[in-house]
Amino acid sequence: MSSIKKVVILGTGNVAWHLSFALFKAGLDLVQVFGRNADSAKEVAKRVLAEPVSTINDVVENADLYLLCISDKNIAEVAKKLPEVKGIVAHTSGSVSMDVLSQFQEYGVFYPLQTFKKSAEVVFEKVPILCEGSSNQAESALMSLAFELSENVFSLNSVQRQKLHVAAVIANNFTNHLFAQAYRLCAENNIPFEVLHPLILETARKATLGNPADYQTGPAHRKDEETIGKHLNLIENAALRDLYALITKSIEQQ
Amino acid sequence: MSSIKKVVILGTGNVAWHLSFALFKAGLDLVQVFGRNADSAKEVAKRVLAEPVSTINDVVENADLYLLCISDKNIAEVAKKLPEVKGIVAHTSGSVSMDVLSQFQEYGVFYPLQTFKKSAEVVFEKVPILCEGSSNQAESALMSLAFELSENVFSLNSVQRQKLHVAAVIANNFTNHLFAQAYRLCAENNIPFEVLHPLILETARKATLGNPADYQTGPAHRKDEETIGKHLNLIENAALRDLYALITKSIEQQ
Repeated sequence: MSSIKKVVILGTGNVAWHLSFALFKAGLDLVQVFGRNADSAKEVAKRVLAEPVSTINDVVENADLYLLCISDKNIAEVAKKLPEVKGIVAHTSGSVSMDVLSQFQEYGVFYPLQTFKKSAEVVFEKVPILCEGSSNQAESALMSLAFELSENVFSLNSVQRQKLHVAAVIANNFTNHLFAQAYRLCAENNIPFEVLHPLILETARKATLGNPADYQTGPAHRKDEETIGKHLNLIENAALRDLYALITKSIEQQ
Repeated sequence: MSSIKKVVILGTGNVAWHLSFALFKAGLDLVQVFGRNADSAKEVAKRVLAEPVSTINDVVENADLYLLCISDKNIAEVAKKLPEVKGIVAHTSGSVSMDVLSQFQEYGVFYPLQTFKKSAEVVFEKVPILCEGSSNQAESALMSLAFELSENVFSLNSVQRQKLHVAAVIANNFTNHLFAQAYRLCAENNIPFEVLHPLILETARKATLGNPADYQTGPAHRKDEETIGKHLNLIENAALRDLYALITKSIEQQ
């Protein structure tokens, strides 16, 4: 069991929405939800039976955890305005260093690695949560809390977390962009995109079996210049042709 | 039911191995397996109770279908040496035009879209099979046969199939390469790659829900130049940095 019982949520976006509810369902006491916009604060607070707060000086000082669920660029600013609290102050960002919170006694990071949209339900049990604490005590309190929400909890320092964020952008945003390119190619040629669904799912499944490099196949991998040349001729969109050429080069150099 | 009963397989690689067995299990009569290497021909033929043949002139002329399961660059050559047969002659390649088989009375394409390795079992029911025929009759015979193996059967012409092959390379080979890059970044920083597994599986799942462009998120999508700059600084490998920059640009231009 975690030593954290009383939680204040700062922020009212997608992460605040899902994380507050997951904590609520896990039995935590959601004391307050802070948001500069009173209506947004009310909307999030209502669902977790918390007090909505829109003035930062009204934030209570006796909670065990203050979770900053706000966009990267506002974390430092909101932290500066926060009263001198005794509990752990933690942000939920993948790319911001823990040190922006160093004015507090105890601080840390509680980063759930998943794409959140308010409209889509999140199965938190499977969401990896990456924790870091300013002291062993803070870190273990955050990790215990994380284990109440998820079975995938890891301790990472700020450098590791920032590298992981790069890896996540590559493995999620970039691959999605490639799927979108494949979709467009299909649409332009009246090919049902469903034809590619099994291949897409299989590619992802295989990527979780070990080192994806061991499963590399295709023209670039076998340096089949004839097929590569044919493909470059078939791609009408210049930007996509550049992308095809560079990724092919990168695979060939492995 | 397909009008095709007797099948000759030409080739002994991964596609020949899996496709011959799927046809055998579906009740087709595998008459012969041809391979220039007698041992390889024997290995494939044995599993499907066919006669192994290593001289192309020994190929029977009265089969209903001759399936060329050979590498792209050898298809035209093997086709040239094949006796004048009466059945449909079809190749199984995504990127070769149907016309390389135009010397035959009836010809076509029977292209199963999946990555095959001899060692891994294939659930053929889900594998999309793309068919094309030199006549309506040939095409419908190939499609009926495909439906005996799979529930995902589509008719595509040669241009569509070649465009689809480009899309498949992008959606499979290229995304796998990006997963491999993410894996390397994790390994270099002592981050367990398992942290990214849920995100990878979720990315693929979402890509099958509609147009992946509608699910695009991340720093490039929201034109967050600060995070992008941070990431470029964090990437030590120059080739990966180029890749990051180009894909980011491509997303920003959507």
